[in-house]
Amino acid sequence: MDISQQERTYETSMADKSTPSSLARYLDGEFWETKDHIREEISQGEPFRTSRFVISYWWFYPTFLSYLGVVCGLFGGAVTNLGSPGQKKKWYLPVTDSEFTGMFAMTERGHGSNVRGILTEACYEPSTQEFIIHTPCEDAQKMYIGNSMKGNYASVFAQLIINGDSHGPHCFIVPIRDRHGVMNPGVTAIDMKHKEGLHGVDNGILIFDNVRIPRTNLLSKFGCVSADGLYSSPVQNKSKRFNAMLAALTPTRLGLTVQAIAAMKVSLQGHVHYDLGYRRQFGPKDQQEVKIIEHQTQYLRLMPHLAAALALTFTTRFAACTMDHALCKGEVLQNNSSLQALVAGLKAYSTWENLACLQECRECTGGMGFMMENRIPALKCDSDVFVTFEGDNVVMLQVVVKELMTQFTRQLGNSVVGGLIKTWTSSVSDRVRTSFLGFNVDTVGDMSFLLKAVSYRERVLQRSLATRLYNKVKKKSEEFFDAWNSCLHHVTCLALAHIHRVTLEQFALAVQECPVEEDHTLLTKFCLLHGTSLVYQERAWYLEHHYLTPATSRQIHCMHILVKDEALKVVSDFNVPSCCIQAPIAGVANPRAEWAFYSAPEHPIRASKL
Amino acid sequence: MDISQQERTYETSMADKSTPSSLARYLDGEFWETKDHIREEISQGEPFRTSRFVISYWWFYPTFLSYLGVVCGLFGGAVTNLGSPGQKKKWYLPVTDSEFTGMFAMTERGHGSNVRGILTEACYEPSTQEFIIHTPCEDAQKMYIGNSMKGNYASVFAQLIINGDSHGPHCFIVPIRDRHGVMNPGVTAIDMKHKEGLHGVDNGILIFDNVRIPRTNLLSKFGCVSADGLYSSPVQNKSKRFNAMLAALTPTRLGLTVQAIAAMKVSLQGHVHYDLGYRRQFGPKDQQEVKIIEHQTQYLRLMPHLAAALALTFTTRFAACTMDHALCKGEVLQNNSSLQALVAGLKAYSTWENLACLQECRECTGGMGFMMENRIPALKCDSDVFVTFEGDNVVMLQVVVKELMTQFTRQLGNSVVGGLIKTWTSSVSDRVRTSFLGFNVDTVGDMSFLLKAVSYRERVLQRSLATRLYNKVKKKSEEFFDAWNSCLHHVTCLALAHIHRVTLEQFALAVQECPVEEDHTLLTKFCLLHGTSLVYQERAWYLEHHYLTPATSRQIHCMHILVKDEALKVVSDFNVPSCCIQAPIAGVANPRAEWAFYSAPEHPIRASKL
Repeated sequence: MDISQQERTYETSMADKSTPSSLARYLDGEFWETKDHIREEISQGEPFRTSRFVISYWWFYPTFLSYLGVVCGLFGGAVTNLGSPGQKKKWYLPVTDSEFTGMFAMTERGHGSNVRGILTEACYEPSTQEFIIHTPCEDAQKMYIGNSMKGNYASVFAQLIINGDSHGPHCFIVPIRDRHGVMNPGVTAIDMKHKEGLHGVDNGILIFDNVRIPRTNLLSKFGCVSADGLYSSPVQNKSKRFNAMLAALTPTRLGLTVQAIAAMKVSLQGHVHYDLGYRRQFGPKDQQEVKIIEHQTQYLRLMPHLAAALALTFTTRFAACTMDHALCKGEVLQNNSSLQALVAGLKAYSTWENLACLQECRECTGGMGFMMENRIPALKCDSDVFVTFEGDNVVMLQVVVKELMTQFTRQLGNSVVGGLIKTWTSSVSDRVRTSFLGFNVDTVGDMSFLLKAVSYRERVLQRSLATRLYNKVKKKSEEFFDAWNSCLHHVTCLALAHIHRVTLEQFALAVQECPVEEDHTLLTKFCLLHGTSLVYQERAWYLEHHYLTPATSRQIHCMHILVKDEALKVVSDFNVPSCCIQAPIAGVANPRAEWAFYSAPEHPIRASKL
Repeated sequence: MDISQQERTYETSMADKSTPSSLARYLDGEFWETKDHIREEISQGEPFRTSRFVISYWWFYPTFLSYLGVVCGLFGGAVTNLGSPGQKKKWYLPVTDSEFTGMFAMTERGHGSNVRGILTEACYEPSTQEFIIHTPCEDAQKMYIGNSMKGNYASVFAQLIINGDSHGPHCFIVPIRDRHGVMNPGVTAIDMKHKEGLHGVDNGILIFDNVRIPRTNLLSKFGCVSADGLYSSPVQNKSKRFNAMLAALTPTRLGLTVQAIAAMKVSLQGHVHYDLGYRRQFGPKDQQEVKIIEHQTQYLRLMPHLAAALALTFTTRFAACTMDHALCKGEVLQNNSSLQALVAGLKAYSTWENLACLQECRECTGGMGFMMENRIPALKCDSDVFVTFEGDNVVMLQVVVKELMTQFTRQLGNSVVGGLIKTWTSSVSDRVRTSFLGFNVDTVGDMSFLLKAVSYRERVLQRSLATRLYNKVKKKSEEFFDAWNSCLHHVTCLALAHIHRVTLEQFALAVQECPVEEDHTLLTKFCLLHGTSLVYQERAWYLEHHYLTPATSRQIHCMHILVKDEALKVVSDFNVPSCCIQAPIAGVANPRAEWAFYSAPEHPIRASKL
């Protein structure tokens, strides 16, 4: 494609569109009408016009979650997932009506990832039928609590103690301040002030000095206490009960994934626009300089992220649909551990992928990417925390693998020893059957090769981990924590391999189901690129496991898949309202950054309608 | 080492030290006295007590550069490297005496990396003996110019034009505003305002509307114009002349490397302190939770960066000494292209390594790493721009490879064809000679194996690139730009392989020369870790090139080298003054962050003396 052809493609892509293309519709999926409606609302609402608030890129939050606001999302999630029907009515409905706002107080100074070890106490006093919420030491202070400087109620996780016996962590509704801002006696809230990002939400410390709350403020779905102090729970196993409570976090974790993808889309839009449509640098002697996307490294740094953004779009929709169906059928999420694991893994993969994408966008656009008006710095700072909050990513990966190990054991039945050995042998013959030691170059770019490769890697990692753990725990009688910890690198590799496989499968499925031929062709290319990236980055592993020969491995490289000419169409079909982009680098003026020194863009993206 | 032992090590390391250890002295090197003196000065000076200014981690700037301030560094560098002795006296000495301040105006809206293509014009007018500095179009505006809102003089790069003929980019001293802030007629300065970081330095746009400056304001070392408009230069070749001018950037690039290392040291100090000395999470059933460094992934994410910080410390000193010697001998830097290439490569490797290190520190310390008082966010935001300014890193890597290609051609003499083939053949036999296809596990952890491996990789990449370029340009008659660009991924791999090899060699040399046995033992471990990390991360390449067998490759892993117990000693012996750390997470209270909610640390680092 020569330069003039490219210009035309560019102008067509950037031209104002009154109706979304078929691809834009397909990327939106089943609920495209609702999403279009949300786009309209966002474009008209003032709060969404600022670039500093995280809210600005919640714009295509999936429908099942869209009724939850930023501030009350976690609080509301706790009440709906852990409360009785009466409690939902009392504390959840007023939140949706903005009568009061809530906060979610789980993390403590000494315990973030290991929630089971939290130290805040809730002692039951039968004489008054009250719980006494107390912070016994510095490590028990609730930290990083969002909305703590303004919110009215907190859902507080604390050890439920009756007559000195702990029944494990439970969730309690604790009044923090009334509607006029007057603090509840015994509660202290301290602003933690300056953070790297997310300045739209305050974060603070909550300290409780023997705060009394009614017995009925214990969210009682998984455990309640009778007036005279008898504990009962529908889940007898303490560990299962605890896991059920943590399942309350699943929807918000999926929400984080959606936010991460949105940040990727916004930054990629700027990057693609700048690289393909505007900036030129270097070139053949005595000729016009080339567009910077023409530089091989620039192309290789950018395109795999665009492919990953598409893969994540389809995979997140799959997870959201699964969750929607479960919720519609009245299923409790806590019983769906494979969904929980999928969401945990997606959260980890998407938030890391987002950070990597933002960093490449920042670097590939040079000084422009460093300027606030182009949004990338704020997106980076805001979404940096995603990788450690709502469950640290490394902990999320362990959630994935615990589920994979459970599934594996279940498949094997009770005879773990025999099972392991049998499976391991079949895996070896699998290798011979599915390996592509002898395949030629054409095969490398083949979708079925890629799908088999990522699936093979997951399976081998799963089986070898099971064997290692079995040997350590059963044969060598190692403490489980030590055995697990000595395999932690293996664990994280397996978890990511699992998520990689799922994203590639979901992407391939979406390609297969795409009805418009032109879109099908385009998506096929990006799907191949995504699969190739996944295999390329792990090619050392494939070589070590004789799945690839050195000669074949050298053939696998993302640069062989040319999607440059389709990139503009894809970012345009993300269909992000211009008020959510607001980056001069993306060709959309930023009304909040009057200082930004840019002339009006020649080809504004969707500027006239929204 | 059990926990109580570790506690003791920790307390010993953190105890107040009046005299630095032998290792601290060794890390400081030859100029330790000067560095101690600078530490004293910094500890007493108010400007260094703030955590938001980049100046706070310039504290151990090498001596040869320490007389250059932050603001006048680049301006002064331009004058000293490009000016005549008289010009140095006129514009450089007043800057060091703070009589006025300067700025460095090279980058334009349309040209950052490709300086040769800048559009600002300096037309000579013989009748007035003046240059007319002019911004002919929007793309010619000088952008991101530091100190542009306050500085008095700018060293402006512009195309020198006489009678309509361009003699290429030259550097001119242009008065911007007088000492009272009154703008020079024809000059416009526009504040670019909000950036991701580096808020201590303003950045602005400079626009020149036919600004007249005296003929003598052309920095004349590499080109001057006589009164009647005759151009003369000591360097006849236009391309060589241009490269000589760009050499003026070499010292500041080395300065950036030093800043990047300093940021790594500050963040690692916090991370190591928190991981080894404070935070616990999870652990064996019914036992105390373990320190988070005990988690395998935490260890693997942290320790290679500590090893890299040491490698970079020794390598940067090597580069600084080479530069010192060159400058002392009165050599012009522009003739030392191998030093320029080394510094360019070091700049790229160190600034990327720094970003990766900061990100791991941020993630591995969870929410704490997200809080401003712990410095990591500001360090990240400030040093993010290092990877693209003073020469974009990808461009820096190309500078490295151009030098490597030049050296290669020189070795071969004129007979390029025969040379290439001959060398390629010898490289194949080399492979057989130095490959470790059959070596056992013990050998993998061996220093000589690691040194040979990184050296082999560089050599093979160098030869294969030369062959590829030769085939494309000579045999297929491709345009050089296209040939080079189609090898750009290869180019960046080679450049990094070169820098990796140099850092490992310099580290190994420093280990070898270390006089104290205990320190020697400690440094040996970290050197092995650095080498292992380098080989591990490129093991796919080694497998593809049959240098490693799959079985051997699987043995190479950083987790086999245990340096955890030495980590506290190393960060302590970085000997960073406590006023430069100021992170509660590192055990040093931050007096500027009164809001930070921490009790006084039990083991302040060097708090009493400084």
